[in-house]
Amino acid sequence: MTSTLPPSVDPQRLQEVLDGRWAHVRRDARENLGEPEFAPVYGESMQEARKRVTRMSKKLADSGRVGLGFPKEYGGNDDSGGSVTSIEMLAFGDLSLMVKAGVQWGLFGGAVQLLGTKRHHDAYLRDIMSFDLPGCFAMTETGHGSDVQQLRTTCTYDPETKTFDLHTPHQAARKDYIGNAAEDGRMAVVFAQLISRGRNHGVHAWIVPIRNDDGTPCGGVTIGDDGPKAGLNGVDNGRLTFDHVRVPRENLLDRYGQVAEDGTYTSSIENETRRFFTMLGTLVRGRVSVGGSAGSATKLALDIAVRYGDLRRQFAAPGQDREIVVNDYLVHQRKLLPALATTYALHFAQAELVGTMHDVQYKVHVQGQEIDEDSQRELESRAAGLKVAQTWHATKAIQMCREACGGAGYLQENRLPHLKADTDVFTTFEGDNTVLLQLVAKGLLTGYRDAFGSLDGWGKVGFIADMVRETVLERTAARSLVARLIDAVPGRDDDVPMLDRGWQLKLFEFREKHTLEGAIRRLRKNASTDGMEPFDMFNSVQDHVLRTAQTHIDRIVLEAFVAAIDSATDADAKALLDRVCDLYALSTIEQDKGWFLEHGQLTPTRAKTLTATVNQLLKELRPHMRTLVDAFAIPDAWLACRILEEEEGRQETMAVHDAEVRTGAEGRQASKESATDLEVAPAQ
Amino acid sequence: MTSTLPPSVDPQRLQEVLDGRWAHVRRDARENLGEPEFAPVYGESMQEARKRVTRMSKKLADSGRVGLGFPKEYGGNDDSGGSVTSIEMLAFGDLSLMVKAGVQWGLFGGAVQLLGTKRHHDAYLRDIMSFDLPGCFAMTETGHGSDVQQLRTTCTYDPETKTFDLHTPHQAARKDYIGNAAEDGRMAVVFAQLISRGRNHGVHAWIVPIRNDDGTPCGGVTIGDDGPKAGLNGVDNGRLTFDHVRVPRENLLDRYGQVAEDGTYTSSIENETRRFFTMLGTLVRGRVSVGGSAGSATKLALDIAVRYGDLRRQFAAPGQDREIVVNDYLVHQRKLLPALATTYALHFAQAELVGTMHDVQYKVHVQGQEIDEDSQRELESRAAGLKVAQTWHATKAIQMCREACGGAGYLQENRLPHLKADTDVFTTFEGDNTVLLQLVAKGLLTGYRDAFGSLDGWGKVGFIADMVRETVLERTAARSLVARLIDAVPGRDDDVPMLDRGWQLKLFEFREKHTLEGAIRRLRKNASTDGMEPFDMFNSVQDHVLRTAQTHIDRIVLEAFVAAIDSATDADAKALLDRVCDLYALSTIEQDKGWFLEHGQLTPTRAKTLTATVNQLLKELRPHMRTLVDAFAIPDAWLACRILEEEEGRQETMAVHDAEVRTGAEGRQASKESATDLEVAPAQ
Repeated sequence: MTSTLPPSVDPQRLQEVLDGRWAHVRRDARENLGEPEFAPVYGESMQEARKRVTRMSKKLADSGRVGLGFPKEYGGNDDSGGSVTSIEMLAFGDLSLMVKAGVQWGLFGGAVQLLGTKRHHDAYLRDIMSFDLPGCFAMTETGHGSDVQQLRTTCTYDPETKTFDLHTPHQAARKDYIGNAAEDGRMAVVFAQLISRGRNHGVHAWIVPIRNDDGTPCGGVTIGDDGPKAGLNGVDNGRLTFDHVRVPRENLLDRYGQVAEDGTYTSSIENETRRFFTMLGTLVRGRVSVGGSAGSATKLALDIAVRYGDLRRQFAAPGQDREIVVNDYLVHQRKLLPALATTYALHFAQAELVGTMHDVQYKVHVQGQEIDEDSQRELESRAAGLKVAQTWHATKAIQMCREACGGAGYLQENRLPHLKADTDVFTTFEGDNTVLLQLVAKGLLTGYRDAFGSLDGWGKVGFIADMVRETVLERTAARSLVARLIDAVPGRDDDVPMLDRGWQLKLFEFREKHTLEGAIRRLRKNASTDGMEPFDMFNSVQDHVLRTAQTHIDRIVLEAFVAAIDSATDADAKALLDRVCDLYALSTIEQDKGWFLEHGQLTPTRAKTLTATVNQLLKELRPHMRTLVDAFAIPDAWLACRILEEEEGRQETMAVHDAEVRTGAEGRQASKESATDLEVAPAQ
Repeated sequence: MTSTLPPSVDPQRLQEVLDGRWAHVRRDARENLGEPEFAPVYGESMQEARKRVTRMSKKLADSGRVGLGFPKEYGGNDDSGGSVTSIEMLAFGDLSLMVKAGVQWGLFGGAVQLLGTKRHHDAYLRDIMSFDLPGCFAMTETGHGSDVQQLRTTCTYDPETKTFDLHTPHQAARKDYIGNAAEDGRMAVVFAQLISRGRNHGVHAWIVPIRNDDGTPCGGVTIGDDGPKAGLNGVDNGRLTFDHVRVPRENLLDRYGQVAEDGTYTSSIENETRRFFTMLGTLVRGRVSVGGSAGSATKLALDIAVRYGDLRRQFAAPGQDREIVVNDYLVHQRKLLPALATTYALHFAQAELVGTMHDVQYKVHVQGQEIDEDSQRELESRAAGLKVAQTWHATKAIQMCREACGGAGYLQENRLPHLKADTDVFTTFEGDNTVLLQLVAKGLLTGYRDAFGSLDGWGKVGFIADMVRETVLERTAARSLVARLIDAVPGRDDDVPMLDRGWQLKLFEFREKHTLEGAIRRLRKNASTDGMEPFDMFNSVQDHVLRTAQTHIDRIVLEAFVAAIDSATDADAKALLDRVCDLYALSTIEQDKGWFLEHGQLTPTRAKTLTATVNQLLKELRPHMRTLVDAFAIPDAWLACRILEEEEGRQETMAVHDAEVRTGAEGRQASKESATDLEVAPAQ
């Protein structure tokens, strides 16, 4: 299990493992988008940022790199996985540009492509790809962001005029936070309740003109501006209000639901809820892209912090002239290395997810196969879970990197402020993380198979009582490998070496299973408690239920890491990844050691060994820190971090000068303080 | 111990407890600075922000509210505690203004006052107070932020010209991140190595002109601009480089060290290190102000999130027409309430610290008593520890509040982006938090008494072996009360109710003592290990050592909370605070339950009870959430949060409209989904 770590590993070998199935897309981006103009610009006003990002969007369109995910017959490549990878690569550059691209070609273009039919494709796809038709994805309303099935905008069919009447009944129903709306958008895919013949058929989407050729709003459309945000100020988020706007019947994106001239509604999916979630499900690409982009931003932040930590020195060791490189401090390693290990783990989980997504979407949208509801449901749950894990990890890790770079990390010229501010909303958009965790938990509690059919609320007694979840954990790609490793765990758990992968996997699996079973038990108990309000039945165990989702995601991620190592061919890269995986697994267990102790999975003695083992891993990985970030292969121009360009020279000059002073006539006293004798100054 | 919670508590009663000793300063700020112009402005460029903040600084000076901490004979009030409280109140407004004020009147003015002597006071204090002389505190260098004893700027006395030669020998020695430097500063207190007669006497401070009357840099001074930052863009941080600048002899701030005309150096403090840290120690006010300001920003963020959470609704409960208020969700309470409890706890610890600081400084600087090194050392450690706790809590809590407000939390108009961005650097300036933790740990390991004398590095064998720390925990103001409560804990720990304050205190105390003793044991063992590098002796236990500091701070904070409750007079307020204190104590234990289980302080069964008890506390405190933030008494104008003004009306309009739809002819279908049947939409 534990191979010896080679003294050094070629980052190129590691990069090959990381680059994976869409290596060609990554290479293309590094070679052709590796120019400084794709990096963010510092100190811009919101207006300047918006103008630049619009200009760069056009440039991106002209490069032909935005169409990967669109159908071949319209100049695309039917490559859904490639399109997500391409967004992931864009996220190493200016994140406003990435989001703008995501809105235009992912959300807006994706909705036209996946919810629309041939007439919409013919009419719009080419102009969307060329950015001649900038558009919006107008789903979220001020009053409904998470519970979008309850959107309040209505679109009512009038058989007399053969048009729909699109209407915002009150301010809470206005579309809000809509990218491309405040300035550029010419049309919008608008989600609203479809009403025909007095009956509401649930949320559907229409493609609706919002601006005239001269840029003024179309009649009945009011456009507002969300103004300056915490970040992503190059994206023109805005608000849309519709005052009885007439929309032609054919503008309904009617792949999943059609309205005849006389107002008759038809759909191949009878159940309204199931239909809506099938529609949403086809749009999973957006969520996968956000997760991947969060990963890119995290890698970039770690790249900066690790490089800086190898240059920056502070406090001299006893008897040493030069000060200590901050990466040599245990506590600095404790910050950077587990975050780096988690970033690796999430990278491999994302790669697996993108592959699965591509295969599922290829079958349906290119080969025209029926949607396999099980695999789509599972895909959605994975996408939700990994989006949560990656975006929260990004928020934490980038913050940590900012702090690890001290005051320098607070200056825009050193990139971290933009990374922080731009990624902050990733935990909210494409689904609030807490709500997404609940979605994942629901899938686990009911099993994917049941989730479509019986969506009548899990507050209800009958539903909870029926939840015959077998708690046989469905496996990831690493299925048989994981089973083999777990089966091979020798003897009593207390004696197993902590670097035994099987033991690590077993602990992750046990925690998930036990947490899930406990949640089910408590829900059942609540359901059989007389007089308990349906809401309270669920709400009283909400924290437990969400933990279920979290432990599930952790297991998925570890298993993906294990599978990736297994498929790696270079021995050195494999050995290093093995150790990084150990650090991911053990620091994850360490973070939750309270749970493992509480449930008899760790003895107190073993819990102490765990801490010592993590520290030992940090020591072993210290010489490879730089290799681990170099393997991300982020072009220098994208780093856009001034301190990295200057710090090395500064440290060298200081060292030379200090040596002169020590030997010089002036005789500046040698430091009397040791590296560990820390005192700190007030500063402003 | 556990009183019954009244159904409602008057926030005014709670506010009186919170307002404490400097209630008059708080009241004055609320009444006289409660105007919208003290709130931040959104969407400004850096230049606009700087201009406005400079203008507001002058306005603040004119109001006469900046001089509290200065001597009475110069128009001040000798009220050091009042001046910190006043900065804390400013922090409810624009944080750039708070920081600018902190630089001008805290750091710059404070250094002139506390490190200078009468001739400096006569020459500068009045102009500093009136803002006619804007100035800088130029300590940090690009190459030295934490280890400021190793600053590389030199100031060499030349007896022939009777002037000092101030010089920046290389780029790493330039002054960096200096507030007021880029635009406004006319003079700077510059810290540099004092060299006279070929001997280095360590770091001292000089007051040095940096700009001429016409705003151009003085001869030999190069001024750079740190440019846009993550936040605080109203503060003009810059860089200062000195090329053999002549500084008159009398510009040395010579309270702690003097240079005679002939270059003879004298000081009342012989040991160079001790002298330097005595100088730094007098400047503790800055660090205390940052901690307090972090507290204010956290309160404001929580105020916004709690109010919004009481208005915002999402997902309907089964059988209910209206959607559920998000504060009713357990997981939302799990986010907001423990953060609120910690904010209360830190508030009381801060109040205690400010009182101690005031008393110590009053004795020395007003009554002219000798510095009591023990109490100054303890004060510094408290200030460092609480600065760490408050600023990290701010970073986490404000982030959480941003997320709790969803997309609305990402818009500048809703205040949270500014709170986040502006406070981010609080974990770095006035001492990097990790380095400060080490300072606190050092105090614990050596005892305050020894810390001054033997600063020859704790990497050294002899030193570690000598560290006879008695691990008798020095007590806070609550000394006898805490002892009494702990002594009263009945019987076996396993049977004690979790709301027993004595048991909670005992756990905090045990953890600190045990962690400290373990760290000492490991350091001693390393010291007696042959061949271990001095740096490794310390570095291999650095994580353990820092944990010692953290557990210490937690105990100090809990004891301060207990003391504050004890001194409260209103029964209702007391009962509510008691419960909030329970939540602080138990959620702190819960976060670290791994440690308590590992060390036999919790059984697995009791660990589960702990989680249930925390959830029970959330339920009890839910009806008081609003009261808890109302008691912060933050004027409406300071909130500057648009969503709070609009959301209530929106929700009401929607409710009315929904009711009409339900009863109307159009018959929009009633929601078929329950509150807990969560699905989430992609959004941009």
